[in-house]
Amino acid sequence: MRDNYLEEYYSFLRFPSVSTDAKFADKVRECAAWVSQKLEKIGLESKVVPTPGHPIVWARNKHRNGRPTVLIYGHYDVQPPDPLELWDSPPFEPVLKNGYVFARGATDNKGQIFSHILGLQETIEKNRDLPVNVDLVIEGEEEVGSQNLGKFLTDNRDALKCDVVLVSDTGMIARKTPTLSYGLRGVAALEVKVTGPKIDLHSGIFGGAVTNPATALARLLATLHDQNGHIAVPGFYDDVVPLQDWERESWRKLPIDPDSEMLEETGAPSLFGEAGFSTLERIWARPTAEINGMGSGYQGPGTKTVLPSHAMAKLTFRLVPNQNGDAIIDLVKKHFQKNMPTGVTLEMTSGHSGPWYLTDPHNKFGQAAQRALKKAFNKDAALIREGGSIPIVSDFRKILGVETLLIGLALQDCRAHSPNENFPLENLEAGIRMNQAVLEELAG
Amino acid sequence: MRDNYLEEYYSFLRFPSVSTDAKFADKVRECAAWVSQKLEKIGLESKVVPTPGHPIVWARNKHRNGRPTVLIYGHYDVQPPDPLELWDSPPFEPVLKNGYVFARGATDNKGQIFSHILGLQETIEKNRDLPVNVDLVIEGEEEVGSQNLGKFLTDNRDALKCDVVLVSDTGMIARKTPTLSYGLRGVAALEVKVTGPKIDLHSGIFGGAVTNPATALARLLATLHDQNGHIAVPGFYDDVVPLQDWERESWRKLPIDPDSEMLEETGAPSLFGEAGFSTLERIWARPTAEINGMGSGYQGPGTKTVLPSHAMAKLTFRLVPNQNGDAIIDLVKKHFQKNMPTGVTLEMTSGHSGPWYLTDPHNKFGQAAQRALKKAFNKDAALIREGGSIPIVSDFRKILGVETLLIGLALQDCRAHSPNENFPLENLEAGIRMNQAVLEELAG
Repeated sequence: MRDNYLEEYYSFLRFPSVSTDAKFADKVRECAAWVSQKLEKIGLESKVVPTPGHPIVWARNKHRNGRPTVLIYGHYDVQPPDPLELWDSPPFEPVLKNGYVFARGATDNKGQIFSHILGLQETIEKNRDLPVNVDLVIEGEEEVGSQNLGKFLTDNRDALKCDVVLVSDTGMIARKTPTLSYGLRGVAALEVKVTGPKIDLHSGIFGGAVTNPATALARLLATLHDQNGHIAVPGFYDDVVPLQDWERESWRKLPIDPDSEMLEETGAPSLFGEAGFSTLERIWARPTAEINGMGSGYQGPGTKTVLPSHAMAKLTFRLVPNQNGDAIIDLVKKHFQKNMPTGVTLEMTSGHSGPWYLTDPHNKFGQAAQRALKKAFNKDAALIREGGSIPIVSDFRKILGVETLLIGLALQDCRAHSPNENFPLENLEAGIRMNQAVLEELAG
Repeated sequence: MRDNYLEEYYSFLRFPSVSTDAKFADKVRECAAWVSQKLEKIGLESKVVPTPGHPIVWARNKHRNGRPTVLIYGHYDVQPPDPLELWDSPPFEPVLKNGYVFARGATDNKGQIFSHILGLQETIEKNRDLPVNVDLVIEGEEEVGSQNLGKFLTDNRDALKCDVVLVSDTGMIARKTPTLSYGLRGVAALEVKVTGPKIDLHSGIFGGAVTNPATALARLLATLHDQNGHIAVPGFYDDVVPLQDWERESWRKLPIDPDSEMLEETGAPSLFGEAGFSTLERIWARPTAEINGMGSGYQGPGTKTVLPSHAMAKLTFRLVPNQNGDAIIDLVKKHFQKNMPTGVTLEMTSGHSGPWYLTDPHNKFGQAAQRALKKAFNKDAALIREGGSIPIVSDFRKILGVETLLIGLALQDCRAHSPNENFPLENLEAGIRMNQAVLEELAG
């Protein structure tokens, strides 16, 4: 099998399965068909399930009572390749250079889900069966918000009953270092609009006599934090579960230098965050209040001496266990109302939200994953959380009632979502071993 | 003469002399020619002086030694009439309704400068001469920044040597209340840009570990004022000349209700300004720090969870005697530098500036103007300052070395710059009387 997996991987990568652009809809469908046929070829029962958007490929082995059921999730859709001029080779013509395959989707997520497929194939070729019951759910809309996945899970809740979900769509903390992500932050959005005069005013004729809404908004936003980077909204941290000692300890020992990596990646002149916490703690285990956008008055070239009629800011709060999105938004609204400058009105609109995720990496599934990762990589797994949010993980918990093992294979320099996306073949091969080891360990 | 002045006023108003729009350039030139011919018809020597932009009309009577020289300034260009659909009648087809003439330019400035022209005409018809030497300078670029006026004044400095300038391009405090504006605020602009990461970052993956530039900017802008509306930049008020008792007293007695008018005009939910000062004091005699525009990150619909790379704000400061624009900008820059949040860099760019203006309404010219206004309106003149800036007034002081008497005839509801601009005939007639009375009083 190893002889021609590269050619098959390339075939998978050649589909421009860009989910966000309607002009690629045919290619997305062809890609789904290709995945489904591949899964049938390796001995699984597979079908392409239509949705109002792009189809979901759903495959399974013959389920047998008395053994665990594992749902492996992935996606075959990819990000748009733009800007094309920044690619060294065409995004949908994979090339191998120094052990790295360059193509859109090489890592995210075709390479990672393909390593699972190859792992299953090898096991079936060797043992004629898998050690556990497996469902593969490979969707085509992850890059556009997985809008039809929830309904698919709900519609097929009974058939998809399982013990645990495996997802390889996150990162490895460093090269050759297997990584189990056991936590994600949640998110809650709030838009704030401050209105003063009914129209933009002449700042000479009126300036001084009425509140400037941009000034009012700036003063309001300045109340979000104190000087030490703590969020100053009363009650904001009340439900935050303190970091556990083993986590602080284990993150401190990770084989990375988070501060210099963060400086390098962001290009920020220096790091800054909540006093009393390390960089990793700040992004993985502490909530934030971020301004995503802010606007008021005249933003074009030169000067326009207006006193703006209104000013707005878009905020998102990253949440950690056990914060509740609705409760946090309520606290912030109350805080803003209490700190309202005079002379303006305040409109606040809640936006989308998604819950945080935390699973115990030391429960039986977590332990099985750790043992498997050690077997596949010959190295202890790094146990980390991530700062972002992965809504599908909450769907698996909410709809199927199960935990998710996030065992991603992406490296920092794989350039997911960017030009020159690439995937090292050593990770593809590690993924094959990882798939086999995890299923064995979960079989018990 | 009175019989046909309305028809001539209408002819003047029918020219769409919109200076900002190149497609009206011919009409602007025709309008200048019409004005110049009118001035010749009443017995003045007049010429149309070309500039790189729109021409300047320059007329004068025969100057005689031993009597004062008065420069009367006005402009024949007008604001664009848009939005057209909000006009009740076409902007360049003047109509008379209940004593008000509706047309673009009816007040600003054709009506006001025409009343001066009619005043001169009447005096010449009666006395065959004017009581003083007069220069009329009527430009065509006031609405686009008077960019060629300064050079015209400099080029003709000797010929334009005069004792005082008369300008009717400001407002009357109330109907039938003659008004002498003796002060204007200056202005100084500063643009501030705060930069953090080199590109917009994912707020989940990076949020918490680096400074958010929008938050940093908000915190910086919040240091501009204290809670009582005072500007909190150290040294900002050092050069401010305190209001004089007679001014406070006289403004308090003005026949207007500034607070309710301000609420009505602005539509702001309430008034707010520097503690310890009335509304009129705040806009006429106190400096301000206004945010004219502010922008950062994502401002479109919905949510985009970015941590923005940068944030900017455009500021203007209104200045009062004896503040110096450059010195104020330096103080603000120092203040911002001192209050810089960590983790970001700060770029500050000074913009345009213009000096404040203050003349003593009780000097000999001011007294002459007050007597003349009382004669023309049969009521004591209100002595006021204005919150805006009129750069030409500084040009007259700087280039010609003379003071300006601002004796405007615009009412609040004349809608200068807006649809349905109008001018009451009673103001046109009062302007005729005012022109005659002022020249008589200045003749001594």
